[in-house]
This record gives sequence, structure tokens and C-alpha cells, in this order.
Amino acid sequence: MPKKFKIDPADARRLPFALVDHELEQVESSLRDQVRHFDPGVEPYMSYICDTAGKRIRPALCILMGGASGGVTANHLKLGTILELIHMATLVHDDIIDGASTRRNVATANCKWGEGLAVLLGDALFSHALMLSTEFDDLVLSRVIAAASRDVCQGEILQTQRRFDLTLTRQDYFSIIEMKTGALFAAATELSAYLSNVSGETREAMKDFGMKLGTAYQIYDDCLDLIGSEEQFGKTLRTDLEKGKLTLPMLYLLEDAGATQREILQKRIIQQEELDLTVLAGIAEYQGAISRSLHRAETLLEEAEGCLSLLDDSDYREALGGILTFLAGLLNTLQKG
Amino acid sequence: MPKKFKIDPADARRLPFALVDHELEQVESSLRDQVRHFDPGVEPYMSYICDTAGKRIRPALCILMGGASGGVTANHLKLGTILELIHMATLVHDDIIDGASTRRNVATANCKWGEGLAVLLGDALFSHALMLSTEFDDLVLSRVIAAASRDVCQGEILQTQRRFDLTLTRQDYFSIIEMKTGALFAAATELSAYLSNVSGETREAMKDFGMKLGTAYQIYDDCLDLIGSEEQFGKTLRTDLEKGKLTLPMLYLLEDAGATQREILQKRIIQQEELDLTVLAGIAEYQGAISRSLHRAETLLEEAEGCLSLLDDSDYREALGGILTFLAGLLNTLQKG
Repeated sequence: MPKKFKIDPADARRLPFALVDHELEQVESSLRDQVRHFDPGVEPYMSYICDTAGKRIRPALCILMGGASGGVTANHLKLGTILELIHMATLVHDDIIDGASTRRNVATANCKWGEGLAVLLGDALFSHALMLSTEFDDLVLSRVIAAASRDVCQGEILQTQRRFDLTLTRQDYFSIIEMKTGALFAAATELSAYLSNVSGETREAMKDFGMKLGTAYQIYDDCLDLIGSEEQFGKTLRTDLEKGKLTLPMLYLLEDAGATQREILQKRIIQQEELDLTVLAGIAEYQGAISRSLHRAETLLEEAEGCLSLLDDSDYREALGGILTFLAGLLNTLQKG
Repeated sequence: MPKKFKIDPADARRLPFALVDHELEQVESSLRDQVRHFDPGVEPYMSYICDTAGKRIRPALCILMGGASGGVTANHLKLGTILELIHMATLVHDDIIDGASTRRNVATANCKWGEGLAVLLGDALFSHALMLSTEFDDLVLSRVIAAASRDVCQGEILQTQRRFDLTLTRQDYFSIIEMKTGALFAAATELSAYLSNVSGETREAMKDFGMKLGTAYQIYDDCLDLIGSEEQFGKTLRTDLEKGKLTLPMLYLLEDAGATQREILQKRIIQQEELDLTVLAGIAEYQGAISRSLHRAETLLEEAEGCLSLLDDSDYREALGGILTFLAGLLNTLQKG
């Protein structure tokens, strides 16, 4: 995995999506179309959410995978629209759960209209997306989309349930992030390949690609939360520990630290005492735990690259590989911290 | 519509469901089965919700309509299970929105595990139900179920949005309750008839039946909130006005009251001043507004009875008619109140 790729992580627009700019604009306009399918009284809320939530990564994956597996069709754009609507619904609900008042510097739905309305807006977005999925006239698509949505919720439930739980294993952690983040990425890439009528083997490999990419991305995000610089990344960090979320670097640290340090760490986590960068960096094994986590994510990216080998060479396949390179570059930035 | 039917409204078990007791038990066991399809960490939450939320009215409608339109099949039970799961999801989210700590004397999900987890549990129930709907291998079912779910959310959004809004018309009110309550009843009766392969005309009439029944039920519930006796009904009443919900009797009262009384009423509503039974009953037009509302609900029940005329005579059809009679009896109780 090349690590020379230099990226300003604040600028997600540099993701290698230029190839599908035109199609992404079509998804954008289709999202705006969907907003008009709600009751006129509901439309303005949806319009606001549509304009402020979601980075269109899932639609981009659908389009790129469509192109790489046989050609981009209207169905790939539709799939991208549906998955983005579901993602938007989960963001609206996540912001309620986190009590977040802004998302990317814009007021969240719960901040603007209260929690109650935000719960309902997320629900309406979600049911609209699932209704839209039945328009494919292919139950496989509706089924995989609904199952992925359910997995996202289950991942979040398990994560919430196991806060401050020192018995959480690395296996538990992976199971949670695979559901929470991997499932929707995997649905995007699997179903895009499925829409191109690929073989069962290729479909499975493309699902793996999405799952590994999503999982690696979540590990990156979890490491970023722990060690990133707030100035550099322009977001509030060190929130996971505050909320009792034990992420991969913390799990490694708890495993690797000496008995005394581990006891101190555990006590601080349970008693919700401050665990700032200075405290963490003071533990001898801290840098190693970060490295192990980043390395795990890199391995996932390498495996994801392997999945792509089943596809014919194309600009699209190269762009999918480019996403892996981009994320490897971000991991590298953190490694150098 | 017979009005002699004497009912203790606290005892919903007296609804004429005895005919399908056996099938309702099968739905109950199927609901408990569904719980096991969640991750083991999520299962206990779902089990609790399944045991405490929902009165199984929608499954009963599915079974009765199945029997009345050609015979109860496993698909009718499955439809009942799915719609009840969706209903349970909306109850979990409603309790968050209302800040309710108990439902039928049992702690709500938000009270037991916090709002965040309750949001996610509702989402997971909802997506599981929609996933289950794709198992019919018939997209019509998934589509109507998803559309009905979306309507329920939209109805709730509009209701929340138009609180304390004196420009709300009766037409707006009906549009809201048709979405909020009618849609899921209508989906139950329409799709049950559809599963029995009835004609398009009958399917449409059965949809109407459910819509009218659901709407009449909501009017009853809204009147009950305004004029019911808390002791008699064992639930907290007069909450709608407090929350600024303008229901049918209030809309009639605002229309019918003289200019001075209307101004006083409007002012109290907007300024959220207390509007207790004594104040309301002191307005000359109060009893008339209640009567008009109850009469509107009765008319809907008569129309619903008309819809059933397309079905052959059977014990099931009689039981569907019995639900209308039951509700008419409840309306009668309020009229006399």
C-alpha cells in the first residue's frame, strides 16, 4: 500500500471521485427529487437535511463499482440515492443520540427542531428509502438494503450497550464496526456488482471489498478521535473515551500495558476520569497500540485491494483502488502524528 | 349502528377477537421468534418491547380480513407480525417524543435504557420488519408496507409541526390522522384481502374499511383525551391540549363558539394556559362540538360497514362488523359522559 500519498484530511473532496462527478451530480438532483415526494408540510425539513447531511461516499461507491463491474446504469444511481437516504436517516438519529448541535458547522435537525421531530424525520427518510428500494422490482435489492439497515442499527445498539464495558474484546469491536459502518458500504458494493449481473463469486468479493473498506475507515476514524489534532481536523476529538466507547487503539493499549498501568487505565475509564493525550502518551505502550491499530486498518485495505482483482482493468477499478490509497494516506498521516 | 352495546373501555380484550384467539397466539409466538433473529446482545431489549408494547389489533385485523376474504393463511399471520413490529417501533419512538415513562403501567424503553438506545431499538425493529416484508416474494406487499410506514411518520411530523397552529383546518386534521393512524390499519386490511387474491374493487374497499376504522378510532381517542374521566379510563387525559394538539372536538368548538368565546379559547391555546374540563364545559357550544365529533366517527363506522358488503357472509365478516359495533359502543359511552 503506497504511503507517499499526501492528503489534507479536512478536504474529503479530494477523494478520487472526479471520474464520476457527473453521475454524483445526478444523484444529488435525484436526492432533491426525492424530497418532493414527501407531504408539502414535510418537504422543507427533508430539503434541509438533504442539503446538510452526508458526504455522498456511498453513492460514489455505487457508481464506481457499477462502472467497474460492467457499466454505470440508472439503477446504480438509484441504489446510491437509496443508500444515501438511509445514511442521512442514521446521521439524523446519531445526532440525537450524541446530543450534537452542529454537523460540519451546520445546525443539526435535533438542534433546529427538537429531538421529537428529528426522531420522526429520520424515520420518514428511512421508510421512504425502503419504499424506493421496492421500485427495483427485484426483492434481492430490498432485502439486502433492509438487512444492512438493520445491521447498522444493531451495531449502534451494541456499541451503546457496551460502553464502559472492560470485557469488550477485539472480536466484539470488529463485530460492532462491521455492522455499524461496514454493512452499508458492503451493501453499496455488493448490490452494485449484483446490478451488473456479475458471478456469485465476484458479488461476494465486492461485498468483502465494501466491508473491508468500511471497517478500515472506521478504525481510521477511531484512531483519529484518540490522537488527532483538533486544529488540524476541525472536529471535536477525544469524545469516544468520554462516552465510554472502547475503540481498537484503547483495546490494544489495555492488552499491552503492564499490570499497573492497565489498572490505572481501567479505573479511569470506569470512573470516567479525564484521559487526555498527555496521560495516554505517558504510557509506554501507547504508541505501539496506535501503530497496531493503524497496521490492522492497512492490512484490511490490502485485502480489499485483493478483492478488486476479480474485476477487469478500467478507470473505475483504478478509482476504487484510489479510494484505498487515499485512506492509506490518511492512516499514514496519523502514524506520523 | 347499534348503540346498546355496553362496554367497559378499560378492557380492550373484549374486542371480538375470540374467533381468532388461536391465530393471535401464533402471531404472538411468531413475534417472539422474530426477537431471536436479532444479535444476542440486542435480543433482550427486543424481548422486553415485544412483551410490553402493542395490543395486537393490527394482527387481529389481518387474520379476520384473511378469513373473511378467502381463508386465513400463513401469509396473513406473517403480515400481522410485520405490521405489529412496525407498530411497536412507532410506539417506542412515540414514547421518546412524548417523554413517556410508562405505557400501560410498564416502564417504556426510553425510561429503562435512555432515549438514545430507544431511538436505535425502534430503528432496528422497523428495519427488521421491512426486511421480513421482502420474504413474501411479492414487491406489492413490501411497497405498501413501506409506504404505510412512511405515512405514519409523516402524519406524526405534521401533527408535531402544527401544534398551537390555529390555522389548522378540519381537512388538515383528517389528513394527519389518516396518515398517523389510518395508514397502518388500511395496509392491514388491504393487504390481507390482496393476499386472498380478491378483485381490485374488493381490495380497494377493504383498504377503505381499514382507513375508516382507523380514522374513527383516532377521533374516539381524541374525544376521550378531552372529555374522558381519568378514573374510568385509567390513563392520563387532557394531554393533547397541553401539547397544543388541536383535535376534532376543539376544531368544532373553535368554529362554533361565538366571537368572544373563540378569542378567549384561542388566546388560552396559544399561551398554553390551562383549559380544564370546567373551562371547556362552561362554553355553550362545548357539548355540541363533542357531539359533532362523535357523530363524524359514527358516520365513518357506518361507511366502513358498507365496505364489508363486498365480502361473502362468514363468521369472520361478522367479527369485522363486531369491531365497528364495539367502537360505536365506546363512542356512545362518551356521548353520554
